[in-house]
Formats: sequence, C-alpha cells, structure tokens
Amino acid sequence: MKPILVFQTDFTYKEGAVCAMYGVVKSVDRELEIIDGTHEIPQYDTWSASYRLYQSMKFWPEGTVFVSVVDPGVGTPRKASVAKTKDGYYVVSPDNGSLTHLMNWVGISEIREIDETVNRLKGKNTEGVSIFHGRDLFAYCAAKLASGKITFEEVGSEYPIKDIMLHPVFEPVFGKGLMRGIFEINDPNFGNLWTNIPLSMFLKSGFAYGDHPTLTIRHDGEVVFEQKVLFHQSFGFAEKGEVIIYNNELMKVAVAVNQGSFSETYNLKHGPEWQVEIKKY
Amino acid sequence: MKPILVFQTDFTYKEGAVCAMYGVVKSVDRELEIIDGTHEIPQYDTWSASYRLYQSMKFWPEGTVFVSVVDPGVGTPRKASVAKTKDGYYVVSPDNGSLTHLMNWVGISEIREIDETVNRLKGKNTEGVSIFHGRDLFAYCAAKLASGKITFEEVGSEYPIKDIMLHPVFEPVFGKGLMRGIFEINDPNFGNLWTNIPLSMFLKSGFAYGDHPTLTIRHDGEVVFEQKVLFHQSFGFAEKGEVIIYNNELMKVAVAVNQGSFSETYNLKHGPEWQVEIKKY
Amino acid sequence: MKPILVFQTDFTYKEGAVCAMYGVVKSVDRELEIIDGTHEIPQYDTWSASYRLYQSMKFWPEGTVFVSVVDPGVGTPRKASVAKTKDGYYVVSPDNGSLTHLMNWVGISEIREIDETVNRLKGKNTEGVSIFHGRDLFAYCAAKLASGKITFEEVGSEYPIKDIMLHPVFEPVFGKGLMRGIFEINDPNFGNLWTNIPLSMFLKSGFAYGDHPTLTIRHDGEVVFEQKVLFHQSFGFAEKGEVIIYNNELMKVAVAVNQGSFSETYNLKHGPEWQVEIKKY
Repeated sequence: MKPILVFQTDFTYKEGAVCAMYGVVKSVDRELEIIDGTHEIPQYDTWSASYRLYQSMKFWPEGTVFVSVVDPGVGTPRKASVAKTKDGYYVVSPDNGSLTHLMNWVGISEIREIDETVNRLKGKNTEGVSIFHGRDLFAYCAAKLASGKITFEEVGSEYPIKDIMLHPVFEPVFGKGLMRGIFEINDPNFGNLWTNIPLSMFLKSGFAYGDHPTLTIRHDGEVVFEQKVLFHQSFGFAEKGEVIIYNNELMKVAVAVNQGSFSETYNLKHGPEWQVEIKKY
Repeated sequence: MKPILVFQTDFTYKEGAVCAMYGVVKSVDRELEIIDGTHEIPQYDTWSASYRLYQSMKFWPEGTVFVSVVDPGVGTPRKASVAKTKDGYYVVSPDNGSLTHLMNWVGISEIREIDETVNRLKGKNTEGVSIFHGRDLFAYCAAKLASGKITFEEVGSEYPIKDIMLHPVFEPVFGKGLMRGIFEINDPNFGNLWTNIPLSMFLKSGFAYGDHPTLTIRHDGEVVFEQKVLFHQSFGFAEKGEVIIYNNELMKVAVAVNQGSFSETYNLKHGPEWQVEIKKY
Repeated sequence: MKPILVFQTDFTYKEGAVCAMYGVVKSVDRELEIIDGTHEIPQYDTWSASYRLYQSMKFWPEGTVFVSVVDPGVGTPRKASVAKTKDGYYVVSPDNGSLTHLMNWVGISEIREIDETVNRLKGKNTEGVSIFHGRDLFAYCAAKLASGKITFEEVGSEYPIKDIMLHPVFEPVFGKGLMRGIFEINDPNFGNLWTNIPLSMFLKSGFAYGDHPTLTIRHDGEVVFEQKVLFHQSFGFAEKGEVIIYNNELMKVAVAVNQGSFSETYNLKHGPEWQVEIKKY
C-alpha cells in the first residue's frame, strides 16, 4: 500500500484552505489516504510545528509522509523541502525551524529542496499565486512522492543537513535532588505544561513517585510560582484542583492541575523564559 | 471489510495527541479506517461522552468499533473495558459512566476488562507512561479487535454487566396537558437545549404542533424562564429570534431560538438541576 | 472507484451530529470515502457556504460529490436539491443561496429536487424528525448517488436553473490607476479580507507589485481606514505587523497584516457595506 499522508498546519478548518489542499492530493492520486494531524498549530509558530511532528511521528508506520505547513515566509526565498528522517519517515515542509526536534532527537539523513519547476501544481489558475504553498507546492509534491510518481531523489537537489534552519534548544541541568529546566511546550487543551526534563534524568537525580518536592517557576528570573507539589504517575493521584508533577506521554516531567488548567490557574506559559526548578529537600 | 473505528475524546485537535493515537491504529493494521466522532467532548465530562455515543451509534454499520476516551481517572484503578451492545456494536472506553445511555436505552450484552499484559502497546518508550491510555491502551486494543488480531474474548476477562458504572438518569413525568422533565444535554454549537421528554409521551399528553404551551424553566427550583412558546416541527416555523419547542433528532422535546442561541440568550444550561415544565393551558 | 463525498456544514464537531451523518453514509455503502471540507461555516451563513464550495471544488477530481448543509430553513418548504456543475461536480444542498458562486462563476448545467419519498433515510426512529436533513436527507441521498444506487436522474424531478435561489453579487469597477470593490469574504483564521477584484483587472488598471497605492475602506460610505499600503506577492514582503495588499489563492486582490490579523487590528469585516477603493496616485 502507498504511504499515508499526515497533515499539520496553522490553517484551522474555519474556511476552505484545507479542503483545497486535500483536493490537490486526491487529484494527483485518488488512492492516497489523508489523515489530519492537526490544523490548529498556533499561527506562525514553527517551534510548535516542530514539536508536534516529534510528538506523534514515531507512532506511525515507517514511510509515512508528514506534510507540515506553518509557513510565515511563504512566497519569500525560504527553502521548501522534503526531509528523510533516520527512522524512515518523510517530512514535506518549509525549512524554517519546523525540523528542529526531528534533527536533534531523531536525526535527519537527507534533505532536498523542492524543485518548483516540476513539483508545483500547474493549471487551475494557480501559477500566479505566491501565498498558498500548502496547496500548490507541499500537498502536490507530497502526493507525487507518496503515490510513487516521483522518487525522493526527484523531489529536487540535495543540500547539506547542516544548513537546515534550527531553533535553539535548551538542555536541563541536574544535581542530587535538584533539577533545572524550562517549560518547552504546552498542552493547550488541558492546560498542562511540559518541561524539557526527561523522566530518566529526574529519577536518577533522586526523585521518586510519591515525593513532594518544591516546584519553583521563574519568569525571566522572577519567581511566579513556588509550592510543594506531589510527584506521581497520573493526575488522579492528586486531589481535584491540586497541582501535580507527573511523567508525560513522551517520558518527560510535566505539571498539571488534576481536572483543571495549570497554565490558566497560575497564568503560566511556555518558552525559554519560563524556568523550572524542582528541589527534593 | 474490517469494522470502522469511530473515535470520540475530550482531547481536541490542538496538539499531537489524536495524531499519535491514530498512528498506533495504523501501525497495528494499515487497512483500518478511522473516523472522527468528535474530539470536543467537554473535558472530563463522562455524561456527555455517554450521550454522544448514544446519539450517533445506531446510524453506523453493525460491528463498528467506537473508542471513547474521556478519562479523568486514567492511570488509577478504574476499569478499562470493551463492551458489546445488544445491537452489535463494540465500545472501547474507561468504565466510568461513559456507558450510561447505551446501558439504559440500547442494552449491553457483555463487557470485558482489557488485559493490559497483552493488549497494551509495547515499545516506543511508552511502558512507563500512565497518562495516555487513549494511545497506549484503548486505540491499540481497539485496533487489534477491529483488525481481527484478537477476538472479543481475548480482550480480557468478562465481568458482570451490573458492575458497570452508571450515572443517575432522570425520567420525565406527565399528566394531561402537563409534562415535567429536565434539560439532559445541550447542542453546544447552536445553543439548543434537549429535554429528557420523548416526543411520543408529549403528544400523548395532548400537545400538538401549532400549540403555544407555557414553558417554565427552574434552576434548582427557582423560576428562571417562563413564556408561552410555539411548539412545532422545525425552527423556521418561529420568527427569527423567537423561542420554539421542537422535536429534536432523537425524537425528544427540545427548545431553541430560531437562528439564535437559546442557551446564551437566556443564560440556561443543562443537568438535573435545570427543570422543565410544559403546560398546555 | 466511487466518487468521494466532501462535506461542509455549520454544525461544528462539538457534538454528535457530524458523526451520525457520516454513519448514515457508511450504512448506505461501506466503501464510500468521506472528507471533511469544513464544519465551521458561520451559522446560517449561506453566502459563506457558497463561497467555500467555489474556493475548493475545482481542486477535486471530476465527479466528486459535495454535500453542503447550512440550512436555516430545514423542515420548511425550501427546496432540497442536487446540482450538477458545468465542470462535472455534484452538489447536494438546500437551494437557499448556497449555489450562488457556482452558478455565477462555474455554471450549473442541471438541478433536481430530492424526492423525499424515495431518497430519505427510513427507520431508526427518524421519520418524525424535521430538523436534521443533513443526516436524514442530504447525507443519505448523496451516499446513494455516490455509490451508484441511484442515478442523477433518480434524485428527483429536474427544475429550471433560473429558479435557483441566488444571493446578489457585486462587481468591481475600475479606471486608470483606480479600483473600487468590496470585501466579499474573509479568511477567519488569519484575519485577512478578500476583495471581489480579480488580480488581472487590478494589473490592467496599472497597479504593479512593489507599488504603494492608497487603500481606502468605507463602511456604509464612511471612511474607516486610509493608508498608503504595499502591494506585493506575499505577506513576507511587508514588515511584521504591516498592512499589505496581495494576490490571494483565488487570484483576487486581498488585504492582510503580515503575521497579524488585518480584520481584528482595524476592526473591519466583510459584506457589501464594506467598500474598498485603491488609488495608484
């Protein structure tokens, strides 16, 4: 069977853009299967785009083609690319930071710039359009690749992996009974905040389920939250409304309010300026 | 053909959770067909989860496998189950009230607790994760069942139907030209409120299309709305902005504002504390 | 292969309506492929429904069956129809203005009123329901048509194209270095506003990429915005936060704020009362 196409964008489903994009895929090859990854990436947020690829990709069959279109630079000279990951997935995306996590934590084995002269939609009054590469370039090229009409080599010219545009990443630091990191991303639905601290490192530092370490959160250095907080496996070990440190779905340390929104309740967000410190004693 | 998988959750599509879950399904069996039921069940609202299953299930082909993940108790000892309904559908869900309507108005013929030792996802760094049974347990087990890799019996041990966790339900009462019930659920998009009063009972009580009965709504006993209101077949029989009592898509009595939101306009919600009385005279 | 069904409604995914509708399709024919166009058309907005059909249809394979359910008059005597476009698509929809753009800019070759006596869902306690033609009539009839169970002729009786209900449309006017039109629709996600001015006409009037014409916007005649604004191919040619006139995905002149919302920033909307004037000098 032909590989699945998984799409993520910041388009939302409020108007006809996703529909037009998917029509292009089906017009290239009626048999291709399309799955919505998410169309609710925050607008222009290539960091979130990068994180969402990393969050879900490994659960898909090898060979799956991801199309990621968070593209504030559409129509300007930023590169339009297809990357191949070391574990065998394809990502069709602007080269604008959207590949940061895959590059750092999965590995990219090869990247090619899409040759617009052959892999861009023709006709249907689209040639003069510069603002919708999701439809005219990324969806079209991805469909050709997934359908086998072009090989990966025929996407366009290879360029050096080291030229891929990356966001800076922040590594956590630790000592005995002490961890420091950042909130690197959020769960925008439930209001949980996810740190960059791997559970394995946290346990190695001496923390154990059932502990009540002190959680200190600083925004640009200023303390905005400080409490002793339960560390446990899941939300339900805390009382309803209580803060809990837990192990998230990617085996990283995260913070939630049981059946509530940690982010909203305490007015906290994510990013390098949101520093997290957890002390055992 | 293999049965379809219909998913409903309170995850929304804002981040990568649904995408990861669906990847698990496709990794079990590339051929399985996935349909979004809804991912916008209100958070932790197992009553709504139960209602939405009941609302749509009978329109699907027999044998369809529903996966319902509204799961505030994830990672705690609540049961993870697969139920078989009397009309031949499967529901993969936490046993936490989400089966209330199917139990009461359709019937459940058999229920089994998912055996995590064999029907939980292995590898991909998921073994230590306790907070995402949608991905690691429900989607995975449902995919195995739908693909035929396991039989219903191989899901896990059967347990008594009478042990299924149920929400309390409220029955309407009626006399000649009088009905009393509650708003049991809402239409959160259009702002309509749906009572627990079957149309058949309403007609038997003497109400007829074209009547203008008195609609009285009490919140915990206190009158919050009282008007003579048209009862008719559809919204368009009322003027734009006017309140109308109508027969909803499940043949129950409901209340709307034509081309407006009844719920927002009059600040009304649903639940057992929202009592509805309709008097013919 | 059987034609794809593309759905658009104003139902949202907040409850079980879309799920019930799709179940009906799969119960008619398990093989049919369903795609979400959008379920977030603004409520009762048949103008937007019409525009979204026009925006995406041509990108789909010929023969694709569109089901459009924005239906404030459901259950009243408005016609339920299936139209065939001149370029070979089918549209299943209430005849309530939702066909305006296809009629004017694509052409409709034939339209038939759905015969409810044969092409409406039977059983499942739906016969008495008047408020959900999306499920009971449009989805069911569309599925029968796409599956080949009925021919287009068997949908119901043909009626004259000239009887199709249409919204009024507004044509732009132009002179040398001058264009007048309206904002005819929005991009509700990014906050861009799209005029009814074709790019070709704009260029013919003497405007060129790189120009800074004066953009004047009137609301019912009163000036609400007036600035010299860059006209260019894509957002990124303007500074972040700057207004830009650009060529949109349908080759029409549109206005945006680069990485911001033009509509929100300047409190502007669309409709015939929002007049746009662009002067070169």
